[in-house]
Formats: sequence, structure tokens, C-alpha cells
Amino acid sequence: MFYSKRDLQFQLFEVLDSESLTKYEYFQDHNRESFDMVLEAAEGIATKMMLPLLTEMDRKEPQLVDGKIRIHEGMKPIIKKMGEDGWVNAAFRYDEGGQQLPTTILNAAGFIFQAANYSSSIFSFMSGGSANLIRTFGSQELIDRFTPDMYSGKWQGTMALTEPDAGSSLSDISTSAEPTETEGVYKIKGQKIYISAGDHDACENIVHLMLAKIKGGPIGAKGISLFVVPQKRPENGELIDNDVITAGIFHKMGYKGAPIAHLSIGSNDGALGYLVGEPHKGLSYMFQLMNEARISVGLNATAIGTAAYHTSLAYAKERPQGRKISEKDPTMPQTTIINHADVKRMLLFQKSVVEGSLALLLYCSKLSDLIHVEEGETKERASLLLDLLTPIAKSYPSEMCCLSTSAAVQVLGGAGYTTDFTVEQYYREARIHPIHEGTTGIHGLDLLGRKITIHNGKAAQIFFEEVSKTMAKASENEDLQPFVENLQKTLGKAQQATGYLLGLAGKGETEKFLADATLYLEMFGIITIAWQWLNQGMVAKEKLNDAHEADQNFYQGKLATMRYFYEYELVKVDSLVKRLQSTDSVTIEMQSDWF
Amino acid sequence: MFYSKRDLQFQLFEVLDSESLTKYEYFQDHNRESFDMVLEAAEGIATKMMLPLLTEMDRKEPQLVDGKIRIHEGMKPIIKKMGEDGWVNAAFRYDEGGQQLPTTILNAAGFIFQAANYSSSIFSFMSGGSANLIRTFGSQELIDRFTPDMYSGKWQGTMALTEPDAGSSLSDISTSAEPTETEGVYKIKGQKIYISAGDHDACENIVHLMLAKIKGGPIGAKGISLFVVPQKRPENGELIDNDVITAGIFHKMGYKGAPIAHLSIGSNDGALGYLVGEPHKGLSYMFQLMNEARISVGLNATAIGTAAYHTSLAYAKERPQGRKISEKDPTMPQTTIINHADVKRMLLFQKSVVEGSLALLLYCSKLSDLIHVEEGETKERASLLLDLLTPIAKSYPSEMCCLSTSAAVQVLGGAGYTTDFTVEQYYREARIHPIHEGTTGIHGLDLLGRKITIHNGKAAQIFFEEVSKTMAKASENEDLQPFVENLQKTLGKAQQATGYLLGLAGKGETEKFLADATLYLEMFGIITIAWQWLNQGMVAKEKLNDAHEADQNFYQGKLATMRYFYEYELVKVDSLVKRLQSTDSVTIEMQSDWF
Repeated sequence: MFYSKRDLQFQLFEVLDSESLTKYEYFQDHNRESFDMVLEAAEGIATKMMLPLLTEMDRKEPQLVDGKIRIHEGMKPIIKKMGEDGWVNAAFRYDEGGQQLPTTILNAAGFIFQAANYSSSIFSFMSGGSANLIRTFGSQELIDRFTPDMYSGKWQGTMALTEPDAGSSLSDISTSAEPTETEGVYKIKGQKIYISAGDHDACENIVHLMLAKIKGGPIGAKGISLFVVPQKRPENGELIDNDVITAGIFHKMGYKGAPIAHLSIGSNDGALGYLVGEPHKGLSYMFQLMNEARISVGLNATAIGTAAYHTSLAYAKERPQGRKISEKDPTMPQTTIINHADVKRMLLFQKSVVEGSLALLLYCSKLSDLIHVEEGETKERASLLLDLLTPIAKSYPSEMCCLSTSAAVQVLGGAGYTTDFTVEQYYREARIHPIHEGTTGIHGLDLLGRKITIHNGKAAQIFFEEVSKTMAKASENEDLQPFVENLQKTLGKAQQATGYLLGLAGKGETEKFLADATLYLEMFGIITIAWQWLNQGMVAKEKLNDAHEADQNFYQGKLATMRYFYEYELVKVDSLVKRLQSTDSVTIEMQSDWF
Repeated sequence: MFYSKRDLQFQLFEVLDSESLTKYEYFQDHNRESFDMVLEAAEGIATKMMLPLLTEMDRKEPQLVDGKIRIHEGMKPIIKKMGEDGWVNAAFRYDEGGQQLPTTILNAAGFIFQAANYSSSIFSFMSGGSANLIRTFGSQELIDRFTPDMYSGKWQGTMALTEPDAGSSLSDISTSAEPTETEGVYKIKGQKIYISAGDHDACENIVHLMLAKIKGGPIGAKGISLFVVPQKRPENGELIDNDVITAGIFHKMGYKGAPIAHLSIGSNDGALGYLVGEPHKGLSYMFQLMNEARISVGLNATAIGTAAYHTSLAYAKERPQGRKISEKDPTMPQTTIINHADVKRMLLFQKSVVEGSLALLLYCSKLSDLIHVEEGETKERASLLLDLLTPIAKSYPSEMCCLSTSAAVQVLGGAGYTTDFTVEQYYREARIHPIHEGTTGIHGLDLLGRKITIHNGKAAQIFFEEVSKTMAKASENEDLQPFVENLQKTLGKAQQATGYLLGLAGKGETEKFLADATLYLEMFGIITIAWQWLNQGMVAKEKLNDAHEADQNFYQGKLATMRYFYEYELVKVDSLVKRLQSTDSVTIEMQSDWF
């Protein structure tokens, strides 16, 4: 199996109590049964349609032929099915054709798709995210004109941000928008690169949600506006070519099944774009999609790591090699490798990373649901907390699943390096995630330079309050006391390091303050996942005694993995805080010529 | 450039004083000029023949066609050239056609080949290593019959150890050898997998140095013997088919240019093998080659990491993106990314890993030269020290260059994930090294379970003495004092952790003693590289003042990189020793059913 259904149920219904969402009016038609049906439907599509194409889509990459990208033929029925079954707009309102499904459940379903075959999962996700931008910020006319066919899977949606000279530095985009005589309609000109699903032959139209600068507008990020720039303009029931040319396709290390396009817009002066919302507010709109996408990237990484973990776990349970250290008799049969402590360590590492990450990502998904249905202080707290957690929820899984898929390869040894097994593919696929939707470096700056400090540190305060709540509850159980104390102590160290860094900021030493923001993010990530493990451990501890045998094993596994995380991962904070509080600014002082 | 010539010169002649080797009779015909000529010749072949094939050999993998593996056509002239120019046997005696070149210089040349194109470098290395086994342990008849054509590049040598059911557990091999009427000639039967250069069409014969068990011999590792098993038997000037069938080829994530074979030996009862040395001593003979190969794997990893580092460095110096943190004006031009502290951190990480690893590997190479030419205590000390350092010299670069090539990908961002740049290939190629020539887990057990304890801990004692010597010398310079103190303190922690673990061993708690051997290896590796950096920093400090400008930059870079290593890498020991001294045996107690 490529994921653990039991774990997903545990996370959704035992740890998070996702059923409680159904008490809100927006979700009132749902219940545990309907949630289970959604997850089963996802597993059906994942198992029957996506998983069988995992290797195939890696080997037969999309190709640019005569100006059009051709994707794997097997992808076409999947895109159709995802549209027909309502996966693109499942979270949206009934009056939009949606199902008012909680994001928590939709993301859990997405996780199943991604674990089965990451490349195949992105098409409907991109359409859902970009349609969400139109429905939230666009006019009714734009909504009516573009979203229905995006929901149905007939058209593909994308987010078109990156340009050849503006990757991490979005404010430097140069794609231009010139007003036409029709209000809200602009002539677009520019280049966009790395556009996922930016062109392919499974949909009759591609709808780009594109950032561009209206001529004469403010300089930098403040002059960025959001446009719908379709590949073909729907006009009077016809599709008119809109001068969005696929200038190239990117071939890549992994994630090969997804077509990544280089687009040339308006090179023949014929590309029209439709303004979404107000001029110059594009970046703030786009952040809605980017924040969703960041949670999704964390989930993608976790899903790939999960599939790799289960692959290596199955192998370790079957592969005989060597003997237990205490066994000196060479005539005894070999033992399966899962009995070696070092192999168990590599499996526990993977389990702790992927299940810890999944816990955080579903927690964040639930926050997003609460923001949607709650009011007042509860909503505000959830908003601030999600804002703070987003760079962590994106980056921790992204960085760590590169390492956890590497551990999966290592468990298989030589076999893992060959293409006879899927772990090498997972290793290649995982590597994209620390890069797209903001590199880890960018998220470090976002966390330390912004999220920690905004609103007088209120978001960080809420975080500490929530962690403290979990610790207080956990400490009611004597067996969990050592974990609480450990986390408490580590939190104290992290707070001290934070104080030190904010002191630098206070003195105006901005460069020093932010030089190790990536390490700060790493530290914060480890602590956040330790918190999520304490939360899981607490539930496992509660349920262990009354559980039947299979569940006892499951809960024992949870408790042991929590122990692993505290023993092997949480300790890394010690080294990180030591560095974070050091006065040696070598990365600042190092000169380009010295390399 | 794919490596730094300046750095290699620094390591060889400023840090290691390789010229001093020429005072020994065996190396007396050499001098600095001849060493430089060797390195220039290597750079010539690397640049003109190997580097141009780097991407090509990755894209056009070897294929098994009609029972024969076909490799890239461009590889054929390289194998010929390497043989003709004497690279296979360069270190061997004049009377064998060798050049009596120090291993230090030969390995430095090998490093250049490997950095240019790793796959292309392994053919002559495998021939040299396997021929070395024959010349060291084989009869004169075997030497005369097999080695000359291996030296010339006409025949390919291999090491054939791994079997489908015996990878890490060599003692479980089942390839059998049955005596024939001719003394020293055996009938061989079995399966071997993952044999590098195990079959290809650039050589007329493949000579396997193969482990097998003589029927009726002792059980386990003590019953393993070493044989020459050629693909074709040279008999009376003819080559007779020897029933060594290429049953398959392995396709892999990287390292694609090298043909990796699955061999079926004697399936038609027609494979003859020639015993090398005495029966049942095969494993101890093979350790000569394995130890050489382990240093070489460390060097391979370092070379790939080096090429990735220089690729990302060149990119960082050219790519404009974003502005310095202190620059708030969006109308200012973008800065090159090398000016961002976080990018410098990723470059310093790579530089510290690859140059620190190279220092260790050349140091080990020099030890191997000293063992060859020295006598008495000096020889014994060098032997013990090399023995202790081998698992570290293999594993530290192997593990860390997976991370440093990952940092190279990250520096390039989205571009790094595409096949438009070579960093993604380096990332894939680096991943083999923690696996072959003993997985990292195996080396952890070797270090903690054997090397630390043998001869009453004498090897470890010598290591600490050598590190202390460096510290004593370094502390003569006041500026280096903080580094000496830091290393001293960290060494103390490591010794404490070692004491704790040996205490467990003393109480017979073998499983607990060795459960975290991989982490112990990691800790020991970091300290060893910190020592190598102190050594480099000391030389740089000495030479800085009188250096001309370019050299001043070089030495400043060395000093800053030492600082980086102590600030960001050495601190990791804190977390590792904390875990190593913990009493929680979760990786032992975790049950297979709990996963």
C-alpha cells in the first residue's frame, strides 16, 4: 500500500475530531459517513487510475510537439473523472456546483491522490486553486465565463507567476498590461516560466491566473495586478486564439508526468487579459492561492514521503539479510532486515517525519476550515496561527521528505538505487518541494522576518499558547511527563534564541537578524512537529488500553515513533540554538571573491 | 570549471607536503614537476575526453543487447587512452610496467577524472584495483596470464562480491567452487549482482575477482576464497568462452554511464576459476581491494560534490535575483544571488564539505603511501590510523555529498531541478555512495564495533594523538585559539560518549552498544573533518600575509570556510552526543508489528 488508511483515520477522527466541523451550518449536510465515502472514492481513483501510471508517467515524459504539449494518454481520463466527480470545486458552495466539503477532508483525499502518483494529482488541484481566485476576487462575469469549465475538467487552470528574471523576487516581474478601450480588458505581454500544467492536450483551454504590471502603475510589488489570461478567449460560444504561445517545455529530474511550460504571451500583440478585482492588488490576491498551494506542497512532499516509507517498510519486512547482532552462528538463517536496529531507525525516521508532517498539515487544513466558518476571536486566532504555521507546513515536509525518501532508498540498499523499485523515483520527485512555492530560504525570511513579529508577535504568542495547552493536557498522564518536560525545556531554548535574534532586529542589524532565518525555520519546524507528536501520543496513550490487538499495535507504533522523534529529532534544536545565538557572522562577511 | 586546481595544489603541496614522499627510495625518481605533469595530464583527459560525455552518458545508458552490454561509444577511446597512458598500473613497480607513482598523486588525478565524469572514471579504477589483488596475492602464473592486458586497457577487471541473497552480509554468499583435477583450478557456479563494469563491449575480456566458497570448506566468512573468473579463458593465445553469462543489466537513478551487470556463472557447468592465494582467505584478500575502493568511493562522492559546488558557485556569481536585505528601493537593480547570506551559507556548506572531505581523503592516501614505504612504528601507526579512518573517509563524503549536491540544486532554484543544468545529475549520481562498498550502517558497525576497540583502542588513541598534535601547533597562533578550544571541548564530549558506549559493551549489552553506530560514525566524521579544517586553516593563516592578491582571496576563503564548519557543522556534535548517551532504546524496542 502507498499510504496508511488507518493513520489517516486516526489523524482525521481521533486526533483532530474533524466530525466536529459538521456542527457548522456550511458543513451541516456532512457527517462521518459522507467523509468516509469521500475518502473511499479518492482511494478508488488513486488505486485504479493513478497508481498504475506512476512509473509510466515518469518514463514517458510530456513532449512539446508542434507548439502543443502532449501528456501521457492515461492522464486524460483522470482529468475527466476528477472534473466529473466534482473534485475541482468540492469545497465550494452548493450554488456554485460545489459540495461544501471541509478543506480538511478534501486535503486528506488530495493526500491519497498525491501518494499514489504525485504528477497526476496536480491538474485538478491547479484548476481548483485558480478557479478559487476568480470566484473570490473576480466579477460575476468572469466567474460565469471561466469557472464552470474549469470545474468540469474541460479547461485547465494555472497560476502564472514566475518569469525568467523574477523567480524568488516576484516584485521584479516585467510582464506588462496595457488598458484597452474595454474596461477591465488589457493587452498582456511577457514571458512566464515553470508553469505547471501550463499547456497540455487533455483540455480544450488553459486559463492562466497571471500576474502582470499595468503600465504607469506603482513600482515593485505594489504595481502588480492579477489577470485571467486564457490560452483561448471564449467569445460568443467560440474559442478564439489569445496569443499565448508555448515557447518551451522543461524536462526535470522528477515530477516528470506534469507538463511544465514556458509561455510567451502577446508576442504577436494579440493576448488579452481580464483584470481580477482591483488594479495593483494582484499580489495580495495571489497570496490566497499561494497560501493554499503552500499547504498543498507540504502535503505533496508528505505524500511522496509516505509512499516511499511504505515501500521501504514492506521491503524491510520481507528481505532477509544478516543476523541479529547477538547471533554469532553463521549457520542460522538470515533475519529480515526490519529486525536490525539501524533499519528500524531509518523506518522510524521516515514514519516520524511523514506522520508528523501529515498531522501538522491536517491541523492547518482544519484551521482553514475554522477561518471559513467561525467569527470573531476564534477566527482571528485561527487566521494568525495558520499564517504563522504556513511557512513551516510548507518547508518542514519539503526539506525532510528529501531526507526521508533518501532513507527509503537506503533501506533497500542497492535495489533502492535501481529503477526496479519506486523509491528512486520518490527520491527524485521529493526534491522539487524545497524549491517551488517559495524556496526554503524565502520561507525562513517569511517566518522570522514577518510572521514572528507582525501584530506585536501575537501569532507567535498564540502558537505558544496552543503548544502549552497540549502540554498541560498531556502532563495529566504521568507517562507523558518526560515528553512534556523535554518539549518545555526545548521551547525555552527556542524562545531564548528568538529573543536574541529580535534583539538584533531591535538594534537595526537586519542582515544579522535574518542571516540564519533558514536555520530558525528548521528549529521552529522541529518543535512544531514535536508538538504534533505529543498530541498524537496523547491520543494513542488514551486509547491503547481498550484497543483490540491490531489497534494496540497501531497505538504502540505511535508511542514509539513519538519517542523516536523526541530522542533523535528534537535534540537537533540544541545545536541549532547554539548556532543561532552565535556572534560569528561568517555568512555575511564571506566575500564573493573568496570562494 | 568542475574542480579547483588551486585547492588541489594547496591540499597536496601546502597542507600535506606530498613532495616529501620523494625522499623514499620507491618514489625517488619523482619530484614536484613530475607530479604536476601527472595532474596536468589528468586534467587534459578529464577536460577533453570525459567532461564532454557527462550528460550524453547519462542520457544514453548502456543496454544489454543479445547477451552483451553495449556502452557509450565515446567511452571506448577513453578506456584505451587510460590503458595506453599507464593510468591503470601507475602506482605499481617499474618491473611491472608501472611508474611507482604515490597513491596520493594518483588519487588526486583520479579525483579530477571523477569530478569531470564519474561514470567514465570507474573502468580503469576497477581494472587497477582488481589487478592489484592478483599481483599481491596471486601466483606469478596468474599475474603473467591476466595482469598485462588489464594494465593496457585491453581487458576489464572487476570485483564480484554481491549476490542476490548476500549484499551487506558477505558471509552468506553461495557461489560455489569445486576443485578440478588441475590444482588451483575450480568449477565455479553462482549468481553475482551489481557488478560495476561487469560486462561491456569496449574490452575483449572481463576478468572478475570473485568470492566463492570451496565445497566442504568452513561455514560463513571463514570459508570464502578468492578466484580469478574471466569471462573468457586465455588458453594458448586464444580466448575460450568461460560460461560467465550476462543475465541482466541494472538501470539506475544515476551513475548511468557505468554498466552494472547481473552475472550468471557456470549455469552450463563450464565456468573455471583460478584460486588466488590460499583457500578460505578470500575475504581478507578482498579487504585490500575493499579498503582501496572505500577511499575511492569517498573520493568519488567528493568529486561529484565538488563539480556540483563549482557549478552552483558559477551560477550564483552570475544570476541576478532580489536585493540585499538592507536595500528597500525596488528601482535599484537586482543583485547577484551570491550576495545573499543564505546563498553564501549554502555555498559555504558545500565548500566546507567537499574541501574538508578532499583533505581527509588525500591525508588517507598519504597514509597509504607511508604504509608502503615506511617501516616499524611509523608504518604501524599509519596502518592503524588508516584502518580507523577508512569507514569515516568512505561514509562522511558519501552521506554529506548527497546533502551538498542538494544544496547545489537549491542554489539554482527551479533551474537546478531541470535537466538544463548538471546539478540534478550530480544529485542523482551522489546517491549511490552511501550504498556501495558497504552501506553507511555497515561502516558505523565497523567503526564503533571494531576499529575503536581493536588492539585495546590503540587506533583511536593514535587518532586522538594526531588531532592533539594539530591542536598544539594551531594554538601557537592566537587567532586560531578559539577553534582549538572548540575542537578540544567537542573532542571531550565525543570521548565521553565513547566511554558511555564502551561501558555498554563491557556489560555485554551489545545490541544497545551498537544500535546508534551510524550516529556515532556521523559524530566521528564531523570531528575528523573539523580537524582537517583546522589543519587547512593553520596553513592558510601562515601564508596569508605574504600572499599576492589572488592567493589572499584563496586563503581568506579557507579561513572563512573553517569558521563556517565550526559554526554550523561542528555544533551538530552536541545533539549527537546527547542522543548517543540516552538510555531510551526505542530502535531496539520497536516491534515489526508496530510499524
